[in-house]
Amino acid sequence: MRNIKLKIQYDGTDYHGWQIQKNDITVQEIVKKAVQKIVNEDVHLTGCGRTDTGVHAENYVCNFFTNSRIPSEKLPYALNTYLPNDIVCFEAEDTDENFHSNSSAVKKRYVYKILNREFPDAVMNRYSWHYKYPLDIEKMRIAAKAFIGEHDFIGFASSGFSVKTTVREIYLLDVDKNGDIITIDVVGNGFLYNMVRIIAGTLVFVGGGKINPNDMTDIINSKDRERAGITAPPQGLCLKEVYY
Amino acid sequence: MRNIKLKIQYDGTDYHGWQIQKNDITVQEIVKKAVQKIVNEDVHLTGCGRTDTGVHAENYVCNFFTNSRIPSEKLPYALNTYLPNDIVCFEAEDTDENFHSNSSAVKKRYVYKILNREFPDAVMNRYSWHYKYPLDIEKMRIAAKAFIGEHDFIGFASSGFSVKTTVREIYLLDVDKNGDIITIDVVGNGFLYNMVRIIAGTLVFVGGGKINPNDMTDIINSKDRERAGITAPPQGLCLKEVYY
Repeated sequence: MRNIKLKIQYDGTDYHGWQIQKNDITVQEIVKKAVQKIVNEDVHLTGCGRTDTGVHAENYVCNFFTNSRIPSEKLPYALNTYLPNDIVCFEAEDTDENFHSNSSAVKKRYVYKILNREFPDAVMNRYSWHYKYPLDIEKMRIAAKAFIGEHDFIGFASSGFSVKTTVREIYLLDVDKNGDIITIDVVGNGFLYNMVRIIAGTLVFVGGGKINPNDMTDIINSKDRERAGITAPPQGLCLKEVYY
Repeated sequence: MRNIKLKIQYDGTDYHGWQIQKNDITVQEIVKKAVQKIVNEDVHLTGCGRTDTGVHAENYVCNFFTNSRIPSEKLPYALNTYLPNDIVCFEAEDTDENFHSNSSAVKKRYVYKILNREFPDAVMNRYSWHYKYPLDIEKMRIAAKAFIGEHDFIGFASSGFSVKTTVREIYLLDVDKNGDIITIDVVGNGFLYNMVRIIAGTLVFVGGGKINPNDMTDIINSKDRERAGITAPPQGLCLKEVYY
């Protein structure tokens, strides 16, 4: 049986995240149905992780097993004829039978965008968190350094998940500003539920003066969700890359 | 009575254009209802022109008469609390009683975007025309020159409109490419129904070799809709500026 790996991009605005749900429309359901139309058999579509309602993905990886003989290079074109405008498949390849989109991943990169100005933007409202109060980028950068390395990030996770360990390693956490847009760029070996959005919300608290950047190491070590910042809204988050 | 001028930005993806319609949701209806909630009276909201379903506006101008005493500088904040995320008011000012958003306009600027690459983009699908075949920008630029000046553009209008004259003057028509995105930037004293989209569709025919750029003057002078290109899809179009 073939194990086919797909790379897709989606605008999460109108979806209840990736994972199939009983009553809500999700990206996994839409992509799975498109795949099944092409391979003419039921497939199980394995994703590289859940994304929440409104979260976007530039480079989401998923895979499925099939007996179909369709050449993998033809798959993206075939899929895009069935996919809606806000979901695009841009790559497909045959991969080895042991490949699993989620458990084979060794690193993930997310970007969180903040529109930092007085008035919101009718387009960026879909792709960023509008935060109108001034933010001190330098303070955010100082605080960001404390996240680098291996830590128990249980204080930066929402409840309602089950994982073997809450220890994760963060390799990179950059804060940049380009015009009105602040970009938080993070790479880690894995992320807990809502972890990136809580890191973003915490860095915004630092930038706004609610948290002292020099307290960040203590806050992480305290493992106390109450000491971190709020969970930043979903629309600012985008899965940029999954590494295998 | 005060005559208040508003500047609004909207993502037209989910609206049936500007103008109020019986059964479809439009931007004018949404903004009018928000204004009425604030000024506590019925108002007639005058727009700077119709926009089609899916067309966007960065700088749409509208005005209304009111007895309300609300300071104009407070209006955008008040309006944005009632407006959905894809419609934003960013400016309001008292203007003279003779100001009319449409008939007072002397110039308008539109930008049409084309995503020119093999695969579509899940986000740009909302804001551009995905055209996957190669386009010759130089040919498009040669053809664009023929539109500059005063011409009878009846051959570049869709039927179903009534105007005193179909003569319009185009001051600027630039074609630029930045990465995969081709931008058609046009400024004129006014535009006929679908005129910018038909100009965009015609320039794409030129770029794709279906129309010879040196025939463009003849095509304009022929006043024959059949000789122009197709009407480019709405989502690539954005009203950038209205001049008074």
